[in-house]
Amino acid sequence: MNNPIKIAVDAMGGENSPDKIIRGIEIHNKNSNNIFYNIFGDENLIIPLIKKTRLKTSDYKINHTQNFIKDEDSPLSAAKKGKDTSMWLSIESLKNQDSDAIVSAGNTGALFVIAKLNLKMIEKIDKPALSALWPNKNGMNVVLDLGANIECSEKNLVDFSLMGSALHKSLFDKEEAKVALLNIGSEELKGNSIIKNTYQMLNENNNSLFKFEGYIEGNHIMDGKVNVIVTDGFTGNIALKTAEGTANFITSELKYALNSSIMGKISTLLNISNLRKFKNKLDPRLYNGAILLGLDKPVIKSHGATDEVGFANSLKVCEKIIKGNLIDKIKKNII
Amino acid sequence: MNNPIKIAVDAMGGENSPDKIIRGIEIHNKNSNNIFYNIFGDENLIIPLIKKTRLKTSDYKINHTQNFIKDEDSPLSAAKKGKDTSMWLSIESLKNQDSDAIVSAGNTGALFVIAKLNLKMIEKIDKPALSALWPNKNGMNVVLDLGANIECSEKNLVDFSLMGSALHKSLFDKEEAKVALLNIGSEELKGNSIIKNTYQMLNENNNSLFKFEGYIEGNHIMDGKVNVIVTDGFTGNIALKTAEGTANFITSELKYALNSSIMGKISTLLNISNLRKFKNKLDPRLYNGAILLGLDKPVIKSHGATDEVGFANSLKVCEKIIKGNLIDKIKKNII
Repeated sequence: MNNPIKIAVDAMGGENSPDKIIRGIEIHNKNSNNIFYNIFGDENLIIPLIKKTRLKTSDYKINHTQNFIKDEDSPLSAAKKGKDTSMWLSIESLKNQDSDAIVSAGNTGALFVIAKLNLKMIEKIDKPALSALWPNKNGMNVVLDLGANIECSEKNLVDFSLMGSALHKSLFDKEEAKVALLNIGSEELKGNSIIKNTYQMLNENNNSLFKFEGYIEGNHIMDGKVNVIVTDGFTGNIALKTAEGTANFITSELKYALNSSIMGKISTLLNISNLRKFKNKLDPRLYNGAILLGLDKPVIKSHGATDEVGFANSLKVCEKIIKGNLIDKIKKNII
Repeated sequence: MNNPIKIAVDAMGGENSPDKIIRGIEIHNKNSNNIFYNIFGDENLIIPLIKKTRLKTSDYKINHTQNFIKDEDSPLSAAKKGKDTSMWLSIESLKNQDSDAIVSAGNTGALFVIAKLNLKMIEKIDKPALSALWPNKNGMNVVLDLGANIECSEKNLVDFSLMGSALHKSLFDKEEAKVALLNIGSEELKGNSIIKNTYQMLNENNNSLFKFEGYIEGNHIMDGKVNVIVTDGFTGNIALKTAEGTANFITSELKYALNSSIMGKISTLLNISNLRKFKNKLDPRLYNGAILLGLDKPVIKSHGATDEVGFANSLKVCEKIIKGNLIDKIKKNII
């Protein structure tokens, strides 16, 4: 048996933690082999929760600390109070080679700053990017940057194309990575000069990692013709959140429509298995987890409001990233 | 009886024109009073279509031309071939005071360029903006800019706030206009310097037209707490199209789910009136029509792919804008 994959888990961040974290570990553990969990947090809370699970003591280690970073802490104050918080210690365990990847459901800004303070950038990459999964008709897109960098240079966007493709290949190794640049459709002025220059650079860039497919407009993100969507952090954040708001609006209108008469309720009951399939396909827990790319270790952010199933999926993303040699893929292909 | 409102109608642009245009006029005419349609296009096509309607000859005038701008024409080549096209002539009829507003389902870029060539800007406004309606939980948002200006200054964004509010008040006169600036939620770096400066300017700007509500993130656009969403044209275009793509994705997944078994089909039939209500609420024809703001006459763009119902709604938008004195509202409040 190979050495186990070691995942550092910040048990204290997000809603209903550490409860959902420990239950998420149990779910992930049932469906995976040869994983070791380095759990960081308050053992007084964690031990009673672990006792309720079927985790074996050889599967995990609890690294005790009572300090943790709150959701409302600013990244700066988080970094200051940092060194004995569960988030800091779990990231530090990557630096010390005690873990291979880290996942936290805590404060995004703090995670970002503390990771940058503790970990090295991959050589030749100037800026880290926040990426996430986003469903399309044929599978999943990787979309980046989602807010780490408000302004991006041509070089940054080319790096993001490469890092996003490496991530897609690590997660879905049978698929070809196809990159598109998010742009607008106005005929007169197709994008700003940075986007146009990036287009040229990607067009001339021959690499074995991805195929460049040109521009994509917002309404085609989910068509499934490409699977790596590259943009600056401002635009990417607006696009992702607008999609989230639209999905919430439509599903709440639908729920209202289906419940607004007795006939509606009865037929919805008849129809429940189909609607459940629909719901499952759109379940945001399936693609829970943002991935910070550009550092020399994988840093995964689980959504603060997700539940144990969502957190287990973030652990799965960690596992796939390590097995898929994400960091090596980036290092080999960076220009 | 007052003088009629005169709407210039480019009958030749978009899919299935002039058929849907003439049928759209008939629908609008049934539900409105005292409107006169100045129709521009090929009378050989238009007259037979009008004969099938109940329109009275006193309700319209056909201004014959056989030339028209195609969807695939570049704005520049459209402007060059322009002067005897249906689009150019219908805009010119605003300049000549023969019409009060113009609506076209044709080439957006061409409409934009030809309108700018023929019409004056409202004094003190530097850039026109493209705005559209977007549903929220309580009614409708006005969102702008949607692609006319890739880069915007603080002054532009303040102007857009004012023009968007004037449009909202013209369309929904009983509601208070509430402005928000579209921004990202990253705690570290809340937006770029232009957005931050605009925030300051809007915060200090006392006016009777709108209330400034601060920043809004993409996932809250449809919450209904504000109703005028202001952003630059690049971000606005990406947001609108991403919302459109997300809505299409979800409704096609839903359709598939509801039709994927016999039980599903039966219960969908039982449920049809509820689903129809749902569909009606989200019907994009209801908010069909982008409005170009900043010129001293109202220019309305109907979606090229809409049908006669959608086109009739664009005519309704024209009518409301004129009755609501949109241009006067902007002129009175501009700083």
